[in-house]
Amino acid sequence: MHVVVNAAMSADGKLSSRRREQLAISGDEDFARVDRVRAESDAVVVGVGTVLADDPHLTVKDERLRERRRERGEPETPARVVVDSSGRTPTDAAVLDDAATTYCCLSEAAPVDRRAALADAAELITAGEERVDLLRAFAALQEAGLEQVMVEGGGELIFSLFEAGLVDELRVFIGPTIIGGRDAPTLADGEGFVADFPELALEAVDRLDEGVLLTWRVEDR
Amino acid sequence: MHVVVNAAMSADGKLSSRRREQLAISGDEDFARVDRVRAESDAVVVGVGTVLADDPHLTVKDERLRERRRERGEPETPARVVVDSSGRTPTDAAVLDDAATTYCCLSEAAPVDRRAALADAAELITAGEERVDLLRAFAALQEAGLEQVMVEGGGELIFSLFEAGLVDELRVFIGPTIIGGRDAPTLADGEGFVADFPELALEAVDRLDEGVLLTWRVEDR
Ligand SMILES: NC(=O)c1ccc[n+]([C@@H]2O[C@H](COP(=O)([O-])OP(=O)(O)OC[C@H]3O[C@@H](n4cnc5c(N)ncnc54)[C@H](OP(=O)(O)O)[C@@H]3O)[C@@H](O)[C@H]2O)c1
Ligand SMILES: NC(=O)c1ccc[n+]([C@@H]2O[C@H](COP(=O)([O-])OP(=O)(O)OC[C@H]3O[C@@H](n4cnc5c(N)ncnc54)[C@H](OP(=O)(O)O)[C@@H]3O)[C@@H](O)[C@H]2O)c1
Repeated sequence: MHVVVNAAMSADGKLSSRRREQLAISGDEDFARVDRVRAESDAVVVGVGTVLADDPHLTVKDERLRERRRERGEPETPARVVVDSSGRTPTDAAVLDDAATTYCCLSEAAPVDRRAALADAAELITAGEERVDLLRAFAALQEAGLEQVMVEGGGELIFSLFEAGLVDELRVFIGPTIIGGRDAPTLADGEGFVADFPELALEAVDRLDEGVLLTWRVEDR
Repeated sequence: MHVVVNAAMSADGKLSSRRREQLAISGDEDFARVDRVRAESDAVVVGVGTVLADDPHLTVKDERLRERRRERGEPETPARVVVDSSGRTPTDAAVLDDAATTYCCLSEAAPVDRRAALADAAELITAGEERVDLLRAFAALQEAGLEQVMVEGGGELIFSLFEAGLVDELRVFIGPTIIGGRDAPTLADGEGFVADFPELALEAVDRLDEGVLLTWRVEDR
C-alpha cells in the first residue's frame, strides 16, 4: 500500500479558519492537480470531521480522467473512505452517494443504529475500541484491493496517520494567505509529537497558482 | 518603517512542539541567513512568550557582520525589543544583557515593581491598556530611529502584527519534519482571521538546508 497525504494550507499552516468552514486556499491549477492525484488512486480517505465540515464528494471531476479510468477497467472514480469511530457520517453526506463505493471505518463504539443507517450506503469496516485503529483499518482496505491511497485530511486524521507510521508521501500546497488562530485546524493536529518527530525529505518544489507545492517523502522510522 | 517577520516552521506550520521547547527546525545555512537579516536590521523584536520559552540573545553572531556594522557607524548588533504587556521578562534574560540596547514595550497594566526592575537594563515604552498596542509601540520605536525591523516570533505576536497591518514581508523557512499538535504554537496564532485574510504575494522560493525558504510580500489592505 502507498499512502499519499494531500492538503492545501495557508502560509501559516492552517487548513481552515477557527470556524472550520471550507476556504479556497489554492486555485484552478491545484484543483486540476488534486483531480489527477485522485484519478491515480484506488481510494480517497478523509476523517469524519472533514465530512461534517465540508461535505466533500471526493470524486474525479475531469471527464477525460474518468474516461481513462474506465478504459483501464477501473471504476470511474476511486473508492471513498471515511474514518469515523462512532458512525457520525450523515446518511445524506455527498460521500455516500452512488458515484463510487464508500467504506466507513468505524470502531467498536459505533452504535447499532448508526451501523444500520450507514450499511445501506457504505461498506463497514470495524477496527479499534473507542477510536478507529488505523493500522488495522488500512490493512482491511488493502485486503479489499486498495493499494494506491490518497488522504485528503483533515488535520486530526493526518496526525494519527503519521503517528501510526502509515504515510509515505506528503504533498502540501501552500497558499498566499494568513489564516491565523490558536484553534484553527492545521495540517497535523492531534496530540502532537514531542520527540522522534517524523522526518521528511523534500522531493520537489513547484510554483502553482499563487503559491507553492511541496512534495515530501516520509523517511522510514 | 519596514517590518520583516522571519521564522522557521515544520512542514505542518509549527514553531515548536506543544511543550514549547526550542527545536532545531532549520540548519546552518538558515542560521547564517537569519544572522545576515539581523545584521541588516535596526531592531529585532520578539514576544515575551519567546523570551520565556527560549531565552534568545538576538545578537549578530558572525564577527564579520558585526565588523561591517561598526564600519557603517552602527551598533555591533541591532536593538532588541520585547513585547511584554505586564513586564514578565526576567531580569536575567539574555536579551537584557549589555550586548545591545533593549526596548521593553509594556502596557499600562505593567506593575510598578516590574517597571523598576526592567528600567535598569531596558528602555521602557508604554502603549496600550491591558495589552501592548502594537501600532503605538511601533510608532515609538520608529521615533527612536528604528526603521528596518525584524520580528523573530512567536506566533502570538506575529498574528497581532498581521492584524494591525504592520507586516511588510514574511520569510518562512519550512523544515523537513512534522511536529503536529492542536496546542503547538504555529506561525500565526492569536484569535485568527475568519474573513479578510491578509493576502501575500510569493516573491521567492529557495531551497536551503533540507527545506525551503519562502519569501512573501504582504499586500496592502
Ligand atoms: N485545506 C485542506 O486541504 C483541507 C482538507 C480537509 C479538511 N480541511 C478542513 O479541516 C477541518 C476538519 O479537520 P479535522 O481535523 O477537524 O477532522 P478530520 O481529520 O477530517 O476528522 C477527524 C475525526 O476523525 C475521527 N477519527 C476516528 N479515528 C481517528 C483516528 N485514529 N485519528 C484521528 N481521527 C480519527 C475522529 O472523530 P470521531 O472520534 O467521531 O470518529 C476525529 O475527530 C475542516 O475545517 C475542513 O474544512 C481542509
Ligand atoms: N521556530 C521559530 O522560528 C520560533 C521563533 C520564535 C518563537 N518560537 C517558539 O514560539 C513559542 C513562543 O511563542 P508564543 O506565541 O507563545 O509567544 P510570543 O508571540 O513570543 O509572545 C506572546 C506574548 O506577547 C505578549 N503580548 C503583548 N502584547 C501583545 C500583542 N498585542 N499581541 C500578541 N502578544 C502580545 C503576550 O504576553 P503578555 O500578555 O504577558 O504580554 C503574549 O502572550 C515558543 O515555543 C518558542 O520556542 C519559535
